[in-house]
Amino acid sequence: MRTTQFKVLEEVNLNNPIFIEALPGIGHVGKLAIDHVIDELGATKFVEIYSPYFPPQVLVGEGGVIEDMVNELYYLKAESEDDHDFIFLVGNCQGLSTEGQYELCGSVLDFVETLGAREIYTLGGLATGQPVEGDRVLGAATDEARIELLKEADIEIRSADGGIVGASGLFLGLGRLRGMSGSCLMGKTPGYFIDAEAAEAVLKKLSILVNIEVNTDKLEERAEETREMISKAQQMEQEMLNRAMGQQQPQDDLRYIG
Amino acid sequence: MRTTQFKVLEEVNLNNPIFIEALPGIGHVGKLAIDHVIDELGATKFVEIYSPYFPPQVLVGEGGVIEDMVNELYYLKAESEDDHDFIFLVGNCQGLSTEGQYELCGSVLDFVETLGAREIYTLGGLATGQPVEGDRVLGAATDEARIELLKEADIEIRSADGGIVGASGLFLGLGRLRGMSGSCLMGKTPGYFIDAEAAEAVLKKLSILVNIEVNTDKLEERAEETREMISKAQQMEQEMLNRAMGQQQPQDDLRYIG
Amino acid sequence: MRTTQFKVLEEVNLNNPIFIEALPGIGHVGKLAIDHVIDELGATKFVEIYSPYFPPQVLVGEGGVIEDMVNELYYLKAESEDDHDFIFLVGNCQGLSTEGQYELCGSVLDFVETLGAREIYTLGGLATGQPVEGDRVLGAATDEARIELLKEADIEIRSADGGIVGASGLFLGLGRLRGMSGSCLMGKTPGYFIDAEAAEAVLKKLSILVNIEVNTDKLEERAEETREMISKAQQMEQEMLNRAMGQQQPQDDLRYIG
Amino acid sequence: MRTTQFKVLEEVNLNNPIFIEALPGIGHVGKLAIDHVIDELGATKFVEIYSPYFPPQVLVGEGGVIEDMVNELYYLKAESEDDHDFIFLVGNCQGLSTEGQYELCGSVLDFVETLGAREIYTLGGLATGQPVEGDRVLGAATDEARIELLKEADIEIRSADGGIVGASGLFLGLGRLRGMSGSCLMGKTPGYFIDAEAAEAVLKKLSILVNIEVNTDKLEERAEETREMISKAQQMEQEMLNRAMGQQQPQDDLRYIG
Repeated sequence: MRTTQFKVLEEVNLNNPIFIEALPGIGHVGKLAIDHVIDELGATKFVEIYSPYFPPQVLVGEGGVIEDMVNELYYLKAESEDDHDFIFLVGNCQGLSTEGQYELCGSVLDFVETLGAREIYTLGGLATGQPVEGDRVLGAATDEARIELLKEADIEIRSADGGIVGASGLFLGLGRLRGMSGSCLMGKTPGYFIDAEAAEAVLKKLSILVNIEVNTDKLEERAEETREMISKAQQMEQEMLNRAMGQQQPQDDLRYIG
Repeated sequence: MRTTQFKVLEEVNLNNPIFIEALPGIGHVGKLAIDHVIDELGATKFVEIYSPYFPPQVLVGEGGVIEDMVNELYYLKAESEDDHDFIFLVGNCQGLSTEGQYELCGSVLDFVETLGAREIYTLGGLATGQPVEGDRVLGAATDEARIELLKEADIEIRSADGGIVGASGLFLGLGRLRGMSGSCLMGKTPGYFIDAEAAEAVLKKLSILVNIEVNTDKLEERAEETREMISKAQQMEQEMLNRAMGQQQPQDDLRYIG
Repeated sequence: MRTTQFKVLEEVNLNNPIFIEALPGIGHVGKLAIDHVIDELGATKFVEIYSPYFPPQVLVGEGGVIEDMVNELYYLKAESEDDHDFIFLVGNCQGLSTEGQYELCGSVLDFVETLGAREIYTLGGLATGQPVEGDRVLGAATDEARIELLKEADIEIRSADGGIVGASGLFLGLGRLRGMSGSCLMGKTPGYFIDAEAAEAVLKKLSILVNIEVNTDKLEERAEETREMISKAQQMEQEMLNRAMGQQQPQDDLRYIG
Repeated sequence: MRTTQFKVLEEVNLNNPIFIEALPGIGHVGKLAIDHVIDELGATKFVEIYSPYFPPQVLVGEGGVIEDMVNELYYLKAESEDDHDFIFLVGNCQGLSTEGQYELCGSVLDFVETLGAREIYTLGGLATGQPVEGDRVLGAATDEARIELLKEADIEIRSADGGIVGASGLFLGLGRLRGMSGSCLMGKTPGYFIDAEAAEAVLKKLSILVNIEVNTDKLEERAEETREMISKAQQMEQEMLNRAMGQQQPQDDLRYIG
C-alpha cells in the first residue's frame, strides 16, 4: 500500500451533507461523542479509509480477531427531506507524519466535496490539566459568520491563545481554502482520562447547531469501554516510545537484525 | 536505489503455497523458528529483497565479507503433490519508517499473490517481562474461522489486549484487505534474550496447523549463534540511538560536517 | 494537499525586485523587522503559500477565527521608477522537514525568479546567550563583491564560525546555485525574547543597503504583540515535544487509538 | 530542489577508474585522508552534488562567504597510461535520512559506473573509545578475493562484530548488487578528536593496494584545521539537538510561529 485508499461500501446520495470530524484526540472527546451518535441514531458506514500514514500495526479485538488501523465515514439521513444529511469521520487513529496529516485531510475533503459537503464541524478536547468547572465547550471557526452562530448557541469563543493541532485544525484550514466553512467545538477536559462529561457537553452544543438529537444516558458506559481500549493503546504507545528512546527493553524492535 | 527491489533467483511454480512471515522481532522467536525450518528441511532461497527503507548500512560477516540488509523468500515443496507448498519470508531487518513498513508488506503480498498464496501465518514473540510458565503460544487471526482452527490446535486465543506491531500485524491486516486469511502465532517470552524455547513452542503449534515436521534438537544451538549476532546488532542500535540523543560520543555521525 | 501551493492574489509587474526573506527564527528578528516594514510602508500581499511541510495545525486568532499556517509574499513598489521594487517573504512558520525546507525554498525561488528577482537578502537573528553590547548586526554573503557592500555599510562580517540554519541560509545557497547573489543580515540577540532592538538594528543596516526608509518608533510595541503570539506558539511546541517524548500528559495524541 | 543534482564541471574520460569514498564520519578519518590526497596530488574537482537530503543550511566560510552543503567528485589521472585513474568522493555532509542515504549512494554509483568505475574503496574510522595501540587499520570487503588482497597488504580483517553504518557501508553493499567489488578500510581511533594518525595509517595501507603515493607530513596540520571546522559543526549539531529535545533555548526554531 503506497497511497491512501478509499474502500467505498455503498454509493450514496446525500442532501447537502454536513461533514463532522471526530477522530481520536485529547480525552477522546470527539470520538466518544460521535461513536455514541452513530450507535444511538444508527448511522451507516459507507467508506473505509486505509493509509500508509497510519501506525504500521493491527489491534487485537474481541475473540482474537484483528482490527485494522482505519478511518471510517458514516452517513446519517436527516429526518426531513429539507434538512441536511450528515457524514461522520471516525476511526482508531490519525495520520502519523506531517505530510500524512495533510494528505489524509486533503483526500477526505476531496471525497466529501463530491458528495456535496460544504460545511464542517470538527470535535475535539482541550486539556486544562485541572478539574473543569462551569462552561465546558469552547468554539473556533473559519469566519465571523460562523463565530456568530456559535455565540447564538451560547458557546464560549476561544480567544487567541494557541492552536488546534491535527485533524480538528487541519480540516478547518484546508476546508476554508476550498471555500468550505466550519467550526471546531472543543470540550474542556482535565485530560487525564476518557471524558464522558466533556463529550456530553460537546454533543449538547452540537445539537443546538445542527439537527442531531441523541440520548446521552449510555455515554458514561461507552466511555468506560473506550478507557479499556485506550489503556491498551497507551501501553503500545509506551512500548514504541521506549523503543524510540533506546531503552533495552523486551520489545519488538522493528529496526534491527538478528 | 529509490524503490524496493525483488531480485528473483529462480522462477518457481508452487502448489497453493502457504506464506509464512518470520522477520526479526521480540525475542527473535519467529526468525529463530523459521531459520531453523529452512535449514533442517532444506528450503530453497528464490528471491532477495532490497529496500531504501532498510537501515542504511551493511553488516560485517564471517571472514570480513559484508552482508547486506535484506529480506529473503524461500520455498519448500510439500512431500505430497496434494499438499500446500510453503513460502517463507526471513531476513535481518524490517522496514524503518511507517511508510516503509506499508510499502514492503504490500510489495511482498503483491509478489506472493502471483505465486498463488492465499493463506498467511505470521510468527512473533510476545514479551511478558517475566519468566513464562504454562502455555507459551498465543494466537490471533483475520477471521472467526481461523480462530476456530487455532482453538482446535489447542492454541490460547489472545484476548483484546493490545496490538501486533510491525510486519507480523501488517501482513495480516493488508492481506485481509486482499481477501487473504491468516493467523499470527506469538510465543510468550521474557523478552530479555533470544528465546529458543518460545521458538520451539511456536514450531510445535505450527506443525499442528500446517504440514511442517522438524526436529528441534539443534534449536538451542541456533539460538546461541543468533544471540551473538543480536549482541552486535544491539551495539550498533545503541550507537545510532546515542547519536540521535545527541550524546557527544565517538560515533560515525551521518548528519554533520567536517 | 500533497504539494506546496501558491495562491496568487494579484498578478504583478515588478522592476528588478529585491527579494527579502524574513521568516520566523531566532529572536524573531527578521520577522519583526519586515512585518514592521510591510505595515509602515503599506506593502501589498500578492501570494499566499500553503504546504504539506508546514505544521499540521491551525492557530486560533482574534475573535476565535482560525489562522492557517502560511507563508506570504508582499510587494512594495519603489518611489522612483529607476529603483528596485521589493518582494518580502513572511509567515508564521518554516517547513518542518529537511526535504520540506529544500522544496519550499526552491519553489519560492522559482516563483520570484519569474518576477525578475536576482538579488536576495535574508534576515535573521544570532543568539549570543548573553546581553549584547556594541555592534548588533553581522553579515555573510554569497560572494566577495557582496561582502564588500556589507563592509561599506559598516556591517561586521561574520567570521568562519558556524552556519546559518534554515531558510535564511538555504535561500542564499540555493539562490547562488541559480546565479543569484545575496546577503544575510543577522541581528545579535540574547535570544531569550522577541528582540525589537535587534530588529531595529537590522532595519537600519538594511536601509543603507537598499532603498527602504522606515520609522521604527512602533517597533517595540509590535515586539510586545509578537511576544504574546510566540508565547502561545511555544506552549503548543512544548505540548508537541512532550508528546514526542512520551510523557503521559493530557494532550491530543495524533498517533493513537481510542 | 526536489531531487539530488549533479553539476558536472568538466566532462572527463577516465581509464578504469577506482572509486574512493571519503565522506565525513568517525574521527573524520576518511575525509582527512582523501582531502589530503586531493591537495597534495592535485586532483581536479569535476562534479558538485547538491541534495534535498543534506542538512537544510549553509556554513559561513572564511571572510563571511557562505559554503553550501555539498558532496564533490574529484578525478586523478594515473601517472602511467596502463594504470587505473581515480575518482574521489568527498564533502561536508552525508544524507540525513534513511531514504536519502540510499538515494545518494545509488545516484553516485549510477554516475561513476558511466565513467567505467568497477572497483570501490570506502574509507572510515572505527571508534575504540580508548587509546589505540598496535595495528590501526581494519578491513572488510565485498568478497573473498578482495579479502585476500587486504591480507596481502597486511591489513587486519575485521571479524564478524557489527556493521558499517552510512555511506562507507552502503556503497559496498549497493555496489556489489551491481557487480562491483570493493573494500572498506577503517582506521581505529579513540574517536574523541580528528585523528591524523588514523588517517595516515589508512593512507599507508591504501598506497599498498592502489597506486597512490602521498607525503603525509602536513596531515597533522590539516587535522588541526579540520578540528576547528568540526568544532563549529558540533556546536550547530548541538543546537539542533537541543531544539529537538525541546529545550527552550535561544535558537532558530524551524518549527514554529511568531
